[in-house]
Amino acid sequence: MTTPIKIRPLTGLPEIAEGAPLGRLLAESAAAAGPAPADGDAVVVSQKVVSKAEGRTRSLAAVEPRAEATELAERLGKDPRLVELVLSESQRIVRAERGVLIVETAGGWICANAGIDGSNVPGTDGVTLLPVDADASARRIRSELEAACGARPAVVIADSFGRPWRVGQVDVAIGCAGLVALDDWRGRTDALGGELAATAIAIADQLAAGADLARVKDSRMPAALATGISRWWTADDGAGARAIQRAAEDDLFR
Amino acid sequence: MTTPIKIRPLTGLPEIAEGAPLGRLLAESAAAAGPAPADGDAVVVSQKVVSKAEGRTRSLAAVEPRAEATELAERLGKDPRLVELVLSESQRIVRAERGVLIVETAGGWICANAGIDGSNVPGTDGVTLLPVDADASARRIRSELEAACGARPAVVIADSFGRPWRVGQVDVAIGCAGLVALDDWRGRTDALGGELAATAIAIADQLAAGADLARVKDSRMPAALATGISRWWTADDGAGARAIQRAAEDDLFR
Repeated sequence: MTTPIKIRPLTGLPEIAEGAPLGRLLAESAAAAGPAPADGDAVVVSQKVVSKAEGRTRSLAAVEPRAEATELAERLGKDPRLVELVLSESQRIVRAERGVLIVETAGGWICANAGIDGSNVPGTDGVTLLPVDADASARRIRSELEAACGARPAVVIADSFGRPWRVGQVDVAIGCAGLVALDDWRGRTDALGGELAATAIAIADQLAAGADLARVKDSRMPAALATGISRWWTADDGAGARAIQRAAEDDLFR
Repeated sequence: MTTPIKIRPLTGLPEIAEGAPLGRLLAESAAAAGPAPADGDAVVVSQKVVSKAEGRTRSLAAVEPRAEATELAERLGKDPRLVELVLSESQRIVRAERGVLIVETAGGWICANAGIDGSNVPGTDGVTLLPVDADASARRIRSELEAACGARPAVVIADSFGRPWRVGQVDVAIGCAGLVALDDWRGRTDALGGELAATAIAIADQLAAGADLARVKDSRMPAALATGISRWWTADDGAGARAIQRAAEDDLFR
């Protein structure tokens, strides 16, 4: 239980285009600079390259905003083409004020701009959308990793989200496979036999956050390999990061 | 820039009582199982033991709830003595419904029950309060570490907080010293020369989250040592975790 955790960035990946074999490229990157990913490890990969590999990129120049998007964009001081994309990727607006547009995405994540952004995307007006189903993306990347290196590391797809009450973004999991995304502690006791206050620990989010520290956002380091986390590794792909989505009826802030 | 991050739990600490020399105990624990903490490293320590060392423990049996606390407790189905403590540690109630009491603490953190809980506290009705000023706590522990091991690792004080929209808790920083708590990316460009979407990364929160993965909550492992994070280490104690508190006027969710 006292194995140290190690997290190293995966470097040297090419610019990722639609159809790129992301799992194989990640396996090659890992093996080029250290041990290949193994069972019990986890590969944490940024949403940005997953979206690029899946063709979830758009050019703002090709977007025709509807009146609703134009009006909202004007009120928020945003690009109407971006707002059009955000609305088309969303099922509900959570907040739209003071220049901030927070939505619930079609996939069920609550975040600013439906996770759409243009950093690290080629072209002056290119943006990425979130993967349609990032848990499915994680399962597919895991399969590709297995084909490339003969092992089944867990896969976490991470994106940087802002939070209420706290300044700054942290990486969270929007998809995963082969990891206990949520470690349920209900009913367990502490070292003194008392009741534990925590009900569940969002393991996948913590792993995404820790892995982000190993990367450099302005470089081509879209992924990291974590070892020493086998407590939460599973052979099965499991329920994915969807387990972390709080149901609307249990939520006090939407 | 590609140094791996390593995080190992600090084990073998005794039960912490008021006045315990926490910094020295952490230094001894680290040195007993590996290299002593060095400049450029960070020691992440749970709020619980910091509060115990500072005498921030209370017995619910000694709490006399006021009428306001009794009424609120009845409405929420909580122990009126706990609610009394929560209110006495708070400057504002953010949400009080469906059995959940979320407040802004006197120290400016927004969390459930003002961070008060009874897990891993001796006695059947013992609870810990958050440190009065966890940044000051971090500075003091850092000084004690320096006295014990001759180096100045950063210190992060972590607690497990729930989040809107997402199930499960993650560890966040409520205090730190010697760490860039918030890494400001405004004005920097991405690998392709484009604008970065992120404005600031909450480094201290990500480190708290990653370090929690190395600990086991039901064991006596109240701290972890992180290496490979010297990018964010500073010789000065710096502004602390307070930099992560979002001002009320910039917040859409309180």
